[in-house]
Amino acid sequence: MNNINTRIKSLKEESMQSLSITPDKKNEVLSEMKLLLTERKSDIFKANQKDLADAEKNGIPSPIYNRLIFDDKKLKDIVKGIDDLINMPEPCFRTVLKRQLDDGLTLEKITCPIGMIGVIFESRPDALVQIASLCLKTGNYVLLKGGSEAKHTNRALYDIIHTALINTGLPAGFVTLLETRDEITELLSCHDCIDLLIPRGSNEFVQYLMNNTKIPVMGHADGICHIYVDKHADFNNAIKIIVDAKTQYVAACNSVETVLVHSEIAETFLPKLAGALEKNNVKLLGYEIPKNIMDCEPATDEDFATEYLDYIVSVKIVKDTEHAVKHINKYGSHHTDCIITENDSESEKFMLNVDSSGVYRNCSTRFADGYRYGFGAEVGISTGKLHARGPVGLDGLLTYKYLLRGSGHIVSDYASGISEFHFKDL
Amino acid sequence: MNNINTRIKSLKEESMQSLSITPDKKNEVLSEMKLLLTERKSDIFKANQKDLADAEKNGIPSPIYNRLIFDDKKLKDIVKGIDDLINMPEPCFRTVLKRQLDDGLTLEKITCPIGMIGVIFESRPDALVQIASLCLKTGNYVLLKGGSEAKHTNRALYDIIHTALINTGLPAGFVTLLETRDEITELLSCHDCIDLLIPRGSNEFVQYLMNNTKIPVMGHADGICHIYVDKHADFNNAIKIIVDAKTQYVAACNSVETVLVHSEIAETFLPKLAGALEKNNVKLLGYEIPKNIMDCEPATDEDFATEYLDYIVSVKIVKDTEHAVKHINKYGSHHTDCIITENDSESEKFMLNVDSSGVYRNCSTRFADGYRYGFGAEVGISTGKLHARGPVGLDGLLTYKYLLRGSGHIVSDYASGISEFHFKDL
Repeated sequence: MNNINTRIKSLKEESMQSLSITPDKKNEVLSEMKLLLTERKSDIFKANQKDLADAEKNGIPSPIYNRLIFDDKKLKDIVKGIDDLINMPEPCFRTVLKRQLDDGLTLEKITCPIGMIGVIFESRPDALVQIASLCLKTGNYVLLKGGSEAKHTNRALYDIIHTALINTGLPAGFVTLLETRDEITELLSCHDCIDLLIPRGSNEFVQYLMNNTKIPVMGHADGICHIYVDKHADFNNAIKIIVDAKTQYVAACNSVETVLVHSEIAETFLPKLAGALEKNNVKLLGYEIPKNIMDCEPATDEDFATEYLDYIVSVKIVKDTEHAVKHINKYGSHHTDCIITENDSESEKFMLNVDSSGVYRNCSTRFADGYRYGFGAEVGISTGKLHARGPVGLDGLLTYKYLLRGSGHIVSDYASGISEFHFKDL
Repeated sequence: MNNINTRIKSLKEESMQSLSITPDKKNEVLSEMKLLLTERKSDIFKANQKDLADAEKNGIPSPIYNRLIFDDKKLKDIVKGIDDLINMPEPCFRTVLKRQLDDGLTLEKITCPIGMIGVIFESRPDALVQIASLCLKTGNYVLLKGGSEAKHTNRALYDIIHTALINTGLPAGFVTLLETRDEITELLSCHDCIDLLIPRGSNEFVQYLMNNTKIPVMGHADGICHIYVDKHADFNNAIKIIVDAKTQYVAACNSVETVLVHSEIAETFLPKLAGALEKNNVKLLGYEIPKNIMDCEPATDEDFATEYLDYIVSVKIVKDTEHAVKHINKYGSHHTDCIITENDSESEKFMLNVDSSGVYRNCSTRFADGYRYGFGAEVGISTGKLHARGPVGLDGLLTYKYLLRGSGHIVSDYASGISEFHFKDL
């Protein structure tokens, strides 16, 4: 155990050197990775076959089995992702503020890497390459711990990253793979060395990590998204959007779980919605919905706090926009919520008052995604409110520092009144 | 115990309403506070006299006693601070990104309050008013817990804030004062309701909180700041800056604790520095410094990790800038560190590679402060790297949300290729 702790400590010390790795060098290692991934693809596929055979032997559930597959398509996606990263502008050392404090005393705020990132992911081996590339581009040292079900594939992919680092003369410690289960416990205790933990996996998994470490965790806990159909809604839009938000990918955190309907349109709208959902194999659970409006299985209070991740949606009639907002702020997970309305003032009221990372009007909640927001590479989605909220791009892997350049400036001159600050943004 | 938990939960629910409080209304309550503070100043001073009498009776150490004093000068500072806040532009609902994703589908990122802030502070009662004002301006609900040694003053100040809220028709729950010690434990367990904890007090106190809650803590742990005197340094500048950084206010987190000196100038520079420090009653501890250069008490490895907060400075000779950087990244607290040099390339090397929230050239480390950076109101200084780093202005009390406005846009059209994203920043 102690062994890994020491290793992480020494990697942390080494990681400070990453600040002087040039943008070109970072792109060079990404290019080398791309090259090796293609050259050695048969090695990766062979390793993946072993994992898949083991998975079959162990009777692993099919969703996990599917995520485990690493084939030509996955490889193509990964190589494309690395290419995109290479073509993105250097994210570090960008000036985000430049201010003259006084004659000859200039403050500059620049972006820089956070330091050392821990990444723990389940099943999907492509996540290993993706997150390692993001960390290389941003100059963050990274410790990777993958699921044991993908161990052969992870090892093959890690070998490629390792070789790419060596071939380009970068420190091998830039990316480190941890392979035993004990190492997770050890990693979670290293809050002095690891600046940020990024989990990729189920909600339970993310929750477990959040409850068992003092390292800040960036991830999403739950996705209970709502669509509120206002009395000024265009019904066709409403139905099209709800069907998309529910069925385009049911297992996603940004798919809709609860539909709220304004009381004045419930009678006319709900039967239409029920028909459309039925056609798409979605089961509708109604909360205290009068039988004359719609006949369906009942939803309870508990349903409003449930992330179905399935072809199920709960429906509730609300008095007006204010009541919809109250319901969402109380039961929701502050992820993504939408109002369907043609009325600007109802929409603005909703968008101002819903306390979620994404508040939408007349479009699918499924748009909550870094790629769809135009962020390029996506680090993940955060349901936390600090540091990063909602879909997170490369920015989530950066912090900043303040540079102050003077020529003998001292504070006592300002305290005594000899000098005075003259703030001027440059 | 349970009682407070329930109260905090219901305040959290209520806090969502703060999103619709207008900028004018927020300034109105601040103006009312200002007015009442002046009107009722004799009540405050009387309450403060009680606390001071108790403090004297209990033999409280003089630095704490001094921080406890609330007099006309403190009142003037506080009123000035509220005035500054009123005159600052509304911090919430600022658009920080506006991007067209496709025809008729527009993403907007706006600032908004974080939600509910917990503030725990020791002795200084002026901190209560300052932090409450910052939270009112940013629309964050706030729970305040002050030190018991200031309980009468805190109560008098809180009564004024409470009255100001009532007089302007704002919810009384916007600012809540907790008064018993049990309530701290309870507050620390409310990570589901409290979004951010801001401690104001000693380092031990901040550390204790960090170790006893799952709520994110924004504060500073330690301030071990360095000044490195390069071989290209202007000696006069170096001495002037070191004296200021050490003596202008020794108990500050941004005062210098260790001076590193380039080996080539040690022989000529150190005796000069020793003379200047001696004149300012600063004790100099030397790490392996040859007797022929300077005769002084020895410093050990432990000194390099000690925040003296006193008229003491440790001195070490280093080979060059790279060794200075290594020492700082290893022993420092990533707070504020400075190079004294007339050479641009040494300076840039230092500024790039030192992993601290403030990296300076030729000026005093004491400049690390929100007011001196021109942030206006200061929330505090953060030694964390996430969310906020270094001196924190009002921005530290804000998060953001994404608004997406469409007209029936669904994701399946983009997945199937019927539609395509056309990103365009607006």
